[in-house]
Amino acid sequence: MTRWLPDPLEPAEDDPDAVAVIFADWQSCSDTFEELLDPVRSQYKEAFVVVRCRYRGETYSRCVAIWVDKDFAMVRGWHQGYPKKLGSIWITRSVTHGKAGPRLEPGGRFGASVAVHDRRIIDARFTITGPSETSGFVNARPMLHTRYFPSIEEGAEPSMDELVTMTSYDWEGSQVWAGEAEIAFGPSPVEELESLAPVETIAAYWRSVGVTWGIGTRLA
Amino acid sequence: MTRWLPDPLEPAEDDPDAVAVIFADWQSCSDTFEELLDPVRSQYKEAFVVVRCRYRGETYSRCVAIWVDKDFAMVRGWHQGYPKKLGSIWITRSVTHGKAGPRLEPGGRFGASVAVHDRRIIDARFTITGPSETSGFVNARPMLHTRYFPSIEEGAEPSMDELVTMTSYDWEGSQVWAGEAEIAFGPSPVEELESLAPVETIAAYWRSVGVTWGIGTRLA
Amino acid sequence: MTRWLPDPLEPAEDDPDAVAVIFADWQSCSDTFEELLDPVRSQYKEAFVVVRCRYRGETYSRCVAIWVDKDFAMVRGWHQGYPKKLGSIWITRSVTHGKAGPRLEPGGRFGASVAVHDRRIIDARFTITGPSETSGFVNARPMLHTRYFPSIEEGAEPSMDELVTMTSYDWEGSQVWAGEAEIAFGPSPVEELESLAPVETIAAYWRSVGVTWGIGTRLA
Amino acid sequence: MTRWLPDPLEPAEDDPDAVAVIFADWQSCSDTFEELLDPVRSQYKEAFVVVRCRYRGETYSRCVAIWVDKDFAMVRGWHQGYPKKLGSIWITRSVTHGKAGPRLEPGGRFGASVAVHDRRIIDARFTITGPSETSGFVNARPMLHTRYFPSIEEGAEPSMDELVTMTSYDWEGSQVWAGEAEIAFGPSPVEELESLAPVETIAAYWRSVGVTWGIGTRLA
Repeated sequence: MTRWLPDPLEPAEDDPDAVAVIFADWQSCSDTFEELLDPVRSQYKEAFVVVRCRYRGETYSRCVAIWVDKDFAMVRGWHQGYPKKLGSIWITRSVTHGKAGPRLEPGGRFGASVAVHDRRIIDARFTITGPSETSGFVNARPMLHTRYFPSIEEGAEPSMDELVTMTSYDWEGSQVWAGEAEIAFGPSPVEELESLAPVETIAAYWRSVGVTWGIGTRLA
Repeated sequence: MTRWLPDPLEPAEDDPDAVAVIFADWQSCSDTFEELLDPVRSQYKEAFVVVRCRYRGETYSRCVAIWVDKDFAMVRGWHQGYPKKLGSIWITRSVTHGKAGPRLEPGGRFGASVAVHDRRIIDARFTITGPSETSGFVNARPMLHTRYFPSIEEGAEPSMDELVTMTSYDWEGSQVWAGEAEIAFGPSPVEELESLAPVETIAAYWRSVGVTWGIGTRLA
Repeated sequence: MTRWLPDPLEPAEDDPDAVAVIFADWQSCSDTFEELLDPVRSQYKEAFVVVRCRYRGETYSRCVAIWVDKDFAMVRGWHQGYPKKLGSIWITRSVTHGKAGPRLEPGGRFGASVAVHDRRIIDARFTITGPSETSGFVNARPMLHTRYFPSIEEGAEPSMDELVTMTSYDWEGSQVWAGEAEIAFGPSPVEELESLAPVETIAAYWRSVGVTWGIGTRLA
Repeated sequence: MTRWLPDPLEPAEDDPDAVAVIFADWQSCSDTFEELLDPVRSQYKEAFVVVRCRYRGETYSRCVAIWVDKDFAMVRGWHQGYPKKLGSIWITRSVTHGKAGPRLEPGGRFGASVAVHDRRIIDARFTITGPSETSGFVNARPMLHTRYFPSIEEGAEPSMDELVTMTSYDWEGSQVWAGEAEIAFGPSPVEELESLAPVETIAAYWRSVGVTWGIGTRLA
């Protein structure tokens, strides 16, 4: 894990190599809510890789790779310190009627994928086994992110190099479903996922969440 | 309406100029269900324009324009006599948690749009007013479609020119929600929607459906 | 090759297993030329796989797989008997100034790729070695294509099942450049390219062409 | 023009309201040139709006709006102070053979368009009238750009707020063609182009260029 954590961040004390891969199918809006009526401006899909780290005695979550399929989500992510790039992300949706989709109940099966530059780099599958009280320990903490922008001048200090954390509010979440998952990473000339290739699958979850985000805190 | 109906089809007797515009966010699969685990191969969005017509004493529904965003849906549509083209289709989704989407309840507001060749050609909005026992009378009937393929030779008879109808099975539908809607059509050098521009909005509905389709019947 | 040729087509007599893979970056227009001024309606990229076959004593070229990235090209292809699907196709362009591209001269290097459903299925590279008088023998003949549309009824005869050929006119071509090429096919759940995986590379060419197409001839 | 220029930038002394709109179909690569063989990673299209401004007694060019269709181009642009967003950009290409494209000669006609969020926001046409010694005076100067990143904390100073300029090297350009042009801006809920709507068309040019970019200079 150390290679993924810049100084002075350290691996988490317990399960330092635990990695979470999260797929999300979002709607997003500003305080005016107007984007919700022009859904090309509010919907985006996202996949991201989260690890934990230690900083000043606290354990944080940290996103080390992330792809979205809209520019507004990419820019907002950069503001929050997420290293967002564009990708093509697909996620099976649950349905309530008919045969063409899983139900939110034991036995429901889902697939998800990420492609970058026309190469499939993540393939994942998930089957619900039952309800759960918890939903994972890797992405559950405040995020510790680096906001970084190099100088335009050669050899100069970065124009921005901050460690930040952020808190969200108005969080709402559904029932959690636990399940069994498989995940595989594919090769890419521009990604480095293979060093995170899974050794063991700890747990997998599905849930629906809503959250509001505004500002964060600069730690360094 | 007559300009949209080829001989020998005739307009419906009641409300012959009634038009339905339908937006759908589908998952689709074969009998193996395997596409559901590779959602890039099962998800597509669709918007279509339906009118009614009379043929041999029966009243049918008939799709006169339709756009989808995946090739597999386009080809299957051609098989069924839908005149499918590609478009960019966006539809607000309801959510169960958080603020970034309408609830399936009175007051829930949705937007939907279609663009073809980078031009917005349909903009629609819908606000739920309450539950409904019915869900519209235009798209409710068996479809009467033309399967047409011109000859590759000049001046020759078409290679295929059939009138077909089709029935689906295993239909399942959710509660219906009725509401108020607005819809506007924009200009395009390759579409002819403007002759269908709305004069009056009759009704609008939301529902979730699942359906299986296999074969149809050739009528002529 | 036999598995790729329906009855009564037979493999070519010489080099029956020769396969051509062609990448093209097209502009296309109707007789009005209006699409050229709205390039979203005229530009498309294409990749296709061609073999030869024998029919009634003649040797023809035949396209056995093809991908394009616009619907108008897909539908026109169906009309001509090309089995077109959508794909994401990328082709290095030559440049006349600057460093970011090959020159049309010995040493110029090009790459090309096809992805379907977010999986890379073809990767090709080409390096110009010098001018050439010829440009390949596989795609050089009249095309022999099948125009096929199944019936919408179960167990019925196909609605269209024709063997056609077509000729183009107003053909213009540039200087031909010959070179060395590598090509690799990747796995896909919906393509069958791997049975065509290259054993030996015979030759590779670059040229610019323009052509008009109107009608064809039904042979059976 | 003042509304488009932040303090302390001032409008240019001559023709302060002159605006250039530039369409470019690029290939781009790093020092390894490897991206040129994987063209999905090197090709992108771009459209941008340039004005001039005065700063410390010098006249600069400044990009006030820009769209690209790949993320790598978007991020590199942010590094250079270009306010890049994603858009769908199409540009007629000249051809050397056949009918489906203009020649680089008097009478050659080109179209170009930009769409954002499925709405056409720029439509442009250009007809070559003849060769030219010059190629416009608006985009011809060093760029003066703002590199800006807000703080993640409420009410705090921006994390980055720099005025930069940059120079390119290894510039190569083709023959310049002058012509007549028309341009129109369309409405968008997220763009502000309409305040730049053309009053008079000064000149229009086509040329092919290659350029290398490395570092810039921070001015403030």
